[in-house]
Amino acid sequence: MQAGKPILYSYFRSSCSWRVRIALALKSIDYETIPINLIKDGGQQFSEEFQKLNPMKQVPALKIDGTIIGQSLAIIEYLEETRPTPRLLPQDPKKRAHVRMISDLIASGIQPLQNLSVLKEVGQENQLTWAQEAINFGFNALEQILQTTAGKYCVGNEVQGGSHSLPYHQPHQQVAASLGGLPSVSPLPAAGYTP
Amino acid sequence: MQAGKPILYSYFRSSCSWRVRIALALKSIDYETIPINLIKDGGQQFSEEFQKLNPMKQVPALKIDGTIIGQSLAIIEYLEETRPTPRLLPQDPKKRAHVRMISDLIASGIQPLQNLSVLKEVGQENQLTWAQEAINFGFNALEQILQTTAGKYCVGNEVQGGSHSLPYHQPHQQVAASLGGLPSVSPLPAAGYTP
Repeated sequence: MQAGKPILYSYFRSSCSWRVRIALALKSIDYETIPINLIKDGGQQFSEEFQKLNPMKQVPALKIDGTIIGQSLAIIEYLEETRPTPRLLPQDPKKRAHVRMISDLIASGIQPLQNLSVLKEVGQENQLTWAQEAINFGFNALEQILQTTAGKYCVGNEVQGGSHSLPYHQPHQQVAASLGGLPSVSPLPAAGYTP
Repeated sequence: MQAGKPILYSYFRSSCSWRVRIALALKSIDYETIPINLIKDGGQQFSEEFQKLNPMKQVPALKIDGTIIGQSLAIIEYLEETRPTPRLLPQDPKKRAHVRMISDLIASGIQPLQNLSVLKEVGQENQLTWAQEAINFGFNALEQILQTTAGKYCVGNEVQGGSHSLPYHQPHQQVAASLGGLPSVSPLPAAGYTP
């Protein structure tokens, strides 16, 4: 596989893809996008061609430096290690741990529970309640954590990984998770980026 | 908070805790365990005391160096950065990315879908099928990835993070996920560690 301009397999409304797009933008990395429409044609992520790129049948996947990486946080860690400027993780190991804890809380603790395939399993009647519960549970925990870690961003005042995960909640306002009473969670995306 | 011997809040059957116990053992880190029984007393993770430590009400959480870290992979990354010997991540950035992709595939893509709280929501009647589907879907993807990355371990022949995530599947044999036809996934935990 020849290395050229990175190619991001992405869907505009996918919050995991969004997270990677933010990291790419912050690091001013020039890349091409190949859209994978998660709805059209029964889900283009299920095509034979895409499954070969990412057997998890999920976006994002990034073709970069002659390899393919799936999973948004693994992609961001790779970008951080190979394109370190500007840095997205603080230098202090404890703060780095807090950023990763927050990112994982969102990427493992909230998001998988309310993605398309799970909502399909849950059924149309129950999916709104289901998604709201998952998001509210996670955001309540996040609120409690941010009260000790947050400055302008999730951990302190430097832009960093945890905050990337946060714009995540924007697309999901469609499921109307309540942000009322979460003073530390609510202002962060607005203070962060316009995707 | 004073730093002393690290304290792991753990449950013996929790696969995320298991993953951290393996990392601690591989790095020969001396620590104490405080058991949090996820079943007893309606779930000790819901106690007021524990919620203060980890607002996600989940194990594991590690009290270390005067801070508390939740989320198993964030804990392992912290241990790797502060106690680098023996290393659990390869030196090559692409291989590191593959390890993280595999770890995230398990920790975000499989595990959250079949943990206790989700199974409870799904209901007793459907939970076995639900859990099996989630695990089989993820393991089929993992099998395809490992065919290009695995040596003795998930990525090459050095012990590393991705493999930590794998013992994960052992407790879940209780939900009888089929490992038949997954030649790359099946032998790995056996080749790895005795937790």
